[in-house]
Amino acid sequence: MEISEHKHIISVLVTNKPGVLARVSGLFSRRGFNIESLAVGTTNDPAYSRISLVVHGDDRVIEQVTKQLNKLIDVIKVSDITHSETVLRELVLVKISAKPEQRTEILTVSNTFRGKVIDIGDSSMIVEITGHDEKIDAFIRLMKKYGIIEIVRTGKVVLVRGAATT
Amino acid sequence: MEISEHKHIISVLVTNKPGVLARVSGLFSRRGFNIESLAVGTTNDPAYSRISLVVHGDDRVIEQVTKQLNKLIDVIKVSDITHSETVLRELVLVKISAKPEQRTEILTVSNTFRGKVIDIGDSSMIVEITGHDEKIDAFIRLMKKYGIIEIVRTGKVVLVRGAATT
Repeated sequence: MEISEHKHIISVLVTNKPGVLARVSGLFSRRGFNIESLAVGTTNDPAYSRISLVVHGDDRVIEQVTKQLNKLIDVIKVSDITHSETVLRELVLVKISAKPEQRTEILTVSNTFRGKVIDIGDSSMIVEITGHDEKIDAFIRLMKKYGIIEIVRTGKVVLVRGAATT
Repeated sequence: MEISEHKHIISVLVTNKPGVLARVSGLFSRRGFNIESLAVGTTNDPAYSRISLVVHGDDRVIEQVTKQLNKLIDVIKVSDITHSETVLRELVLVKISAKPEQRTEILTVSNTFRGKVIDIGDSSMIVEITGHDEKIDAFIRLMKKYGIIEIVRTGKVVLVRGAATT
């Protein structure tokens, strides 16, 4: 049997209750899927949250998992938007080791990437940057020469282009 | 007994394995805590992920939960950084109903909030905006007059100011 593994982008609309997230992520982990990225946030209606997932795995198995997700109490809607035209974004905070004389250099690179410097310490800077993987990875690569102290990422969120809802 | 309920910001460093997220979020939900915000992303070392949590609850109970978190396999470090000097950011994508003649108006407001227009459709626009709750809420409030089609949020990520690590 041919196995066809791909990256899947799945958007799950759930009621905003304790335990829902653990049940949704548990469904993937019980089948040995490692979730590459997960983000949860409230929607325009505070009664609902949206979980955005990026999972790498066999197409047929992921189809089964999304069917099981649909059966969970508190899951309102599951959309596999892997093949839709989407915008996908992630927010990353990067804390960089920075001597005072390096600040201008780091600021210039950050501006080029449309990043924002949000903290300057005696020997460090924090830059906020958003985008897709390639852009963020390129920025982090450039910052390595100064020394990266810490990185924190939000996980990816995604919307379908145009007026349609997910 | 006096109950003292506050918002807590908790940062959990974990090994990047299936099931860890479900176990961490399950610990909170089993005690009836609703997680207000949760974000998971890889760190500079891809073997580890960081889970950033915002939870509202009784101080003593949250202290117990963080102690239990520390005992979980695959949890490397738990930091309650509620009282540290931090930068806290969230990324939000807002899809707005927009007629062509409204685009300039929406673009102007977005620029003021340092948002980025990342999609323009025949009757819609998507704006990417980052910041803390008050800024994001103010932007969403202003966009309501055009009609909000959809909102997706990453959950909040946080770093301690200065050179120290979390």
